[in-house]
Amino acid sequence: MSILVATDLGEIELTEWLKCLHEAMPGETLITDRLGWDAQDIDIAIVANPSEGSLQGLSSLRLIQSLWAGVDKLLGDITLPPEVPLARMVDPAMNQAMAQTALWAVLGIHRGFFRYAQQQSAKEWKQLPQCRADEVTVAMLGLGEMGRTVAQRLATNGYCVIGWSRKPAQVPGVESRHGDSALGPVLAQANIVLNLLPLTGETRGIFDRKRFVQMRRGASIVNLARGAHVVDADLLEALGTGQIEHAVLDVFHAEPLPCGHAFWTHPQVTVLPHVAALTDPRSASAVVAKNVRALRRGLPLQHLVDRSKGY
Amino acid sequence: MSILVATDLGEIELTEWLKCLHEAMPGETLITDRLGWDAQDIDIAIVANPSEGSLQGLSSLRLIQSLWAGVDKLLGDITLPPEVPLARMVDPAMNQAMAQTALWAVLGIHRGFFRYAQQQSAKEWKQLPQCRADEVTVAMLGLGEMGRTVAQRLATNGYCVIGWSRKPAQVPGVESRHGDSALGPVLAQANIVLNLLPLTGETRGIFDRKRFVQMRRGASIVNLARGAHVVDADLLEALGTGQIEHAVLDVFHAEPLPCGHAFWTHPQVTVLPHVAALTDPRSASAVVAKNVRALRRGLPLQHLVDRSKGY
Repeated sequence: MSILVATDLGEIELTEWLKCLHEAMPGETLITDRLGWDAQDIDIAIVANPSEGSLQGLSSLRLIQSLWAGVDKLLGDITLPPEVPLARMVDPAMNQAMAQTALWAVLGIHRGFFRYAQQQSAKEWKQLPQCRADEVTVAMLGLGEMGRTVAQRLATNGYCVIGWSRKPAQVPGVESRHGDSALGPVLAQANIVLNLLPLTGETRGIFDRKRFVQMRRGASIVNLARGAHVVDADLLEALGTGQIEHAVLDVFHAEPLPCGHAFWTHPQVTVLPHVAALTDPRSASAVVAKNVRALRRGLPLQHLVDRSKGY
Repeated sequence: MSILVATDLGEIELTEWLKCLHEAMPGETLITDRLGWDAQDIDIAIVANPSEGSLQGLSSLRLIQSLWAGVDKLLGDITLPPEVPLARMVDPAMNQAMAQTALWAVLGIHRGFFRYAQQQSAKEWKQLPQCRADEVTVAMLGLGEMGRTVAQRLATNGYCVIGWSRKPAQVPGVESRHGDSALGPVLAQANIVLNLLPLTGETRGIFDRKRFVQMRRGASIVNLARGAHVVDADLLEALGTGQIEHAVLDVFHAEPLPCGHAFWTHPQVTVLPHVAALTDPRSASAVVAKNVRALRRGLPLQHLVDRSKGY
């Protein structure tokens, strides 16, 4: 049996992935969706933004392995074979990359570095007040593998972290709360709200006017999850009134962020081109190979998505 | 006996300092240099950029305690009483602030966040390559209290750190080298060179063309020590040729950085207004009080400066 690699990657990136995947599982036959293939012969699909319908008709398919951590787009493809196990990418190296981005954004807000960048544009030399990390409360929304790693990294670096998730979650060294009724109070305590929630029917548009009003005046927001978590117009309004001081956004409703979008030039918005945590082919290929070996040997698969929950 | 507080602080800052110092040593009499005083009655001077000559004629002086960590400017005042013990500010909270700034700068260089800020100005959406923290080598120059704290914080966050100092220094978990002949090889290994050396006759102008050439092509530099460590013209040349990719500068030959200086508008230079680690009056006052108590009780003083070395 063979493995179909179905992606929208550019040639250079795809070549790098194929090299790493080959090295991680030298015994397997990898076929890209750029060439023809025998549908009967494919039992595993490795996917990264596959074109819609590309997994239809693969009657022998037994595993869909995503190279990306987020599967909301994949689940939006109604042609996705419904009964085949679907695994997300969960890679410790990717969690570390996410923790770096989160820490950089939190340090930038806490220590005024985004404001100093604005000052540099204006050739303004002005020292802003400085407080300690333990005087800064970060609300970490979403306590999956990534959220837990980020929460702990922030705590290790001295921040006061409160975790929040839909269901109870234990994170060593981090106070955490759960459920709808706890979200308002958590937001009200935070100087910085960091979003790593999965995108589901329940979390779509979660950052709207109502939630911004629940936050502390002058709080900042860091969205490293999905653009659709945020109601852009409400965020722009909250930035305008000073309710929200700064937003670091890595994700957007449309990507690339359209040229005319107000975020690009807003002095209180930091725009990143969806780079908070890129999947590293070197480490991620080992994660893929582990699931492929498990399937071949009849062992349990890792990081399976619950399609009813959406993550 | 009384304590003279001689500073160039603004009224608001000075009031905050006096409040904190009073709280930390309620039994002491504090006199500011804004009012008159009896020179015979002063046995301790607490200083922060005192005006030249302001400590002359204090015949009972037994301790000069700086509120700042760097004493190079103070030592440049030839009227400074030569025999009186001089103590630097060494405050764990300040070391933490320095570690935050260093980590933010290193993360920004490592993960391309300074380049993404440039891209945002141009509304450019482009993902840059991402590597792991353990693939980034940071040369930490200067292994005093601050340098050691910074080196350890960077190592804790996954970076490969090589320390360098004039004399041998032990930093748990960090490889370190010392002496002139080791500096070139250390620079040649580093992706990021972080400066926390004291400013002395030996280190003035240490970052010149010769040192930039010794660095890896495309390395970056973070100067959180003193502006006079850097030969500005040589840095601008190295940035222009691409030998140095980015510079994060918190300190300058003249401060505030003059309006016409090329650093302000250089796309590869991040200008900070000397804020890497502000002294926090709350914690620093406790450090001052400890030395004051030691003096009153005849116990050894902490953090004394060796004037012959300059730090």
